Amino acid sequence: MNKEIFVKLLAQRQFKAVRSILDVMNEVDIASLLSDLDDKELALAFRLIPKDKAAEVFANMNHSMQTYLVEMFSEKELKELLDDLYMDDTVDLLEELPANLVNRILNTVDQADRTLINQLLNYPDDSAGTLMTTEYVDIRETMTVAQAMAHIKETGIHKETIYTCYVTDQRRLLGIVSAKDLMTTADDVLIRDLMQTEIISVSTHTDKEEVAQLFTKYNFLALPVLDQDERLVGIVTFDDAMDVMVDEATEDITKMAAMSPSEKSYFETSVLAHAKHRIAWLLILMFSATITGTIITRYENAFAAIPLLVSFIPMLMDTGGNCGSQSSTLIIRGIALGEIQFSDLFRVMFKEFRVSLIVGVALALANGIRILIMYKNAGLALVIGLSLVATIVISKLIGCVLPLIAKKLHMDPAIMASPLITTLVDTCSILIYFNIATQVFQL
Amino acid sequence: MNKEIFVKLLAQRQFKAVRSILDVMNEVDIASLLSDLDDKELALAFRLIPKDKAAEVFANMNHSMQTYLVEMFSEKELKELLDDLYMDDTVDLLEELPANLVNRILNTVDQADRTLINQLLNYPDDSAGTLMTTEYVDIRETMTVAQAMAHIKETGIHKETIYTCYVTDQRRLLGIVSAKDLMTTADDVLIRDLMQTEIISVSTHTDKEEVAQLFTKYNFLALPVLDQDERLVGIVTFDDAMDVMVDEATEDITKMAAMSPSEKSYFETSVLAHAKHRIAWLLILMFSATITGTIITRYENAFAAIPLLVSFIPMLMDTGGNCGSQSSTLIIRGIALGEIQFSDLFRVMFKEFRVSLIVGVALALANGIRILIMYKNAGLALVIGLSLVATIVISKLIGCVLPLIAKKLHMDPAIMASPLITTLVDTCSILIYFNIATQVFQL
Repeated sequence: MNKEIFVKLLAQRQFKAVRSILDVMNEVDIASLLSDLDDKELALAFRLIPKDKAAEVFANMNHSMQTYLVEMFSEKELKELLDDLYMDDTVDLLEELPANLVNRILNTVDQADRTLINQLLNYPDDSAGTLMTTEYVDIRETMTVAQAMAHIKETGIHKETIYTCYVTDQRRLLGIVSAKDLMTTADDVLIRDLMQTEIISVSTHTDKEEVAQLFTKYNFLALPVLDQDERLVGIVTFDDAMDVMVDEATEDITKMAAMSPSEKSYFETSVLAHAKHRIAWLLILMFSATITGTIITRYENAFAAIPLLVSFIPMLMDTGGNCGSQSSTLIIRGIALGEIQFSDLFRVMFKEFRVSLIVGVALALANGIRILIMYKNAGLALVIGLSLVATIVISKLIGCVLPLIAKKLHMDPAIMASPLITTLVDTCSILIYFNIATQVFQL
Repeated sequence: MNKEIFVKLLAQRQFKAVRSILDVMNEVDIASLLSDLDDKELALAFRLIPKDKAAEVFANMNHSMQTYLVEMFSEKELKELLDDLYMDDTVDLLEELPANLVNRILNTVDQADRTLINQLLNYPDDSAGTLMTTEYVDIRETMTVAQAMAHIKETGIHKETIYTCYVTDQRRLLGIVSAKDLMTTADDVLIRDLMQTEIISVSTHTDKEEVAQLFTKYNFLALPVLDQDERLVGIVTFDDAMDVMVDEATEDITKMAAMSPSEKSYFETSVLAHAKHRIAWLLILMFSATITGTIITRYENAFAAIPLLVSFIPMLMDTGGNCGSQSSTLIIRGIALGEIQFSDLFRVMFKEFRVSLIVGVALALANGIRILIMYKNAGLALVIGLSLVATIVISKLIGCVLPLIAKKLHMDPAIMASPLITTLVDTCSILIYFNIATQVFQL
């Protein structure tokens, strides 16, 4: 859909045309189309969206658009919207609204929903509880397939997914039945005989990253969420798990480059916010790097005697940093994907040690040959070669150990990524280098 | 399930107990359980898996287990497995098998499947064509809901998903109907009146990263794949898209740390393979870093006169590298998520320029104060401050421009990440630093 045409039609108040465009468009695309309108046009356009799509479009809007619309809505409009919004989207909305609008919404919904919403808002930020929706299909084990299908036909339209049905008794989860099973099984089969009873579930307090990992592993469409009394309180659907996966990967990547993660996209984040997210780590790393500088001054005599020594500093520092970040990156990603645990520490260290020996010797040889050709100085080749091997072994070990220790201490392994490791490795490589140099050249 | 108990029961040939364990277990977990068995036990255990789970378990096994089983299978067993495997899993299997086993499989399937398989194997490696499955539910627009449901009950059991049904006429895609719509609509409604006609689809040659992005954006369960003549040839399901997303993020993260991506997990990759993946970039970066070293030697007189100058090299190099990698990381991730395009180049540059000014001045002030306190040397504070601002501005600009240029040149933006940028920025920062120093101190 061409945005300009849409804006023009709307400005000319050609409501019929606008409505027929909105009629055929996907909800996600409508939300994106509306994001280009100014506030007044937005309220107008939103009211032209077909009723069965409005809630879904709303759920796909950014927070500032949502806030504006909630402010504009009449009581009746607000009630209609809230009736159609799934519970997880309502909670998402409330988490971002200013307090006065939150109160307005809580006053609009009925008592039961209000209690539920308050409960959902109280779950820890990164838990399955805040991710889940409370609308799911529940059936009884004594129903037949035909009865279950009839039950879905009646109630299913208001559920976020009907493709996994939950067999419950007094809110205790007995089994699950997929819509595929229902649709391909004879009408008179009992749910009891069809349901799967080996169920994988999470608790309301399960970390959402762990929830997302279960989705990736098992390819679920939905996952039941149980409370502390093992009662079914909601489900997480695959679309929310997918969002978590993408967000977590972005967060990890951001942290690995020494920045505080932002919830907004690059362009949505202001210049000041960008600067704020980046300065803290840069300051810490900058002052740590001065330690390396201070160490260098201790070897003033060495590079006064052989000034050429200074010229190898960048190469050693960079190689150490790169080696360390290679190892830490692999380990951080392995931890994030659930492939590496803290208990693998020694296995990882042994593996990295062997890898670093191979890499170190290869790089030392390559550089040694270059130095022999360029400077015809075997002593220098030896110093650089030994420094390289030692630096690479140490940086790879630091790179693999730190993320695992962070994990053990319940910190995010991603902050143990290249920048922090580079700074640490710098100090090590300078110490190694000048110590070897002073020994070999007897400075 | 406790693996040791399972292995013990199997070793004791307690087939009944083994079978009842396999009966209640999830397919993914069975595959993981079987990966701990040796080959002989594996073949035995596989034959004990309930028939309706065997193909799914097989699809979740690693390639070496699959290869072994295909070698072991009788003609009859192989035929049964291939009948139950979805087409995308069959193609995955064939892509990894040695040629003699590929031939064995192609001889086992019937002529129609053989033609189809050959066609699927011919799609480009990273395309929707290799990702898709050819089993989907197709219905006619003249059917009623009840007729469509009856059709699904007959044929649906062999389809990878029945939750999105495709309305076709001579393989032309007219519309889609979700199983939810079918299940919640009156029996006598015509499919024609129920189907959605605004369809988002991909072509067989669409890059699989693009396919995955569509899934994240629209939360689809499945996406239709059309050939060059706009005929429906298959569907991609969300589970495959999820795998692509995870793999692509891992690949990006790996490349961003100057390594060749590996298709295997950390522990599955051998020490030699790890070393191989890491050496190439390290060599390139090491030799590039020697350029910075060579530049330093040109300023031998400067640091012979003021040896203290050398001690600021690590701090300047690290800060420049960190700033560059912050910018490049944000841009690379933005490109991967489809939020940033090449056309945004100047917008991005202007934003990064403003961010870098704020960051640069903040860091220069912090460091200037430190230097004034520690060395009481205003000239030095000025040199370091100016060098910092200039280094930060340049490194942030390099960091944001290179990934966008890579994208424009159809290279992977991820290789323009921190290590490469660090090396480039090092050279810049050293040049800036010594030029400012020689000017200010008139060396």
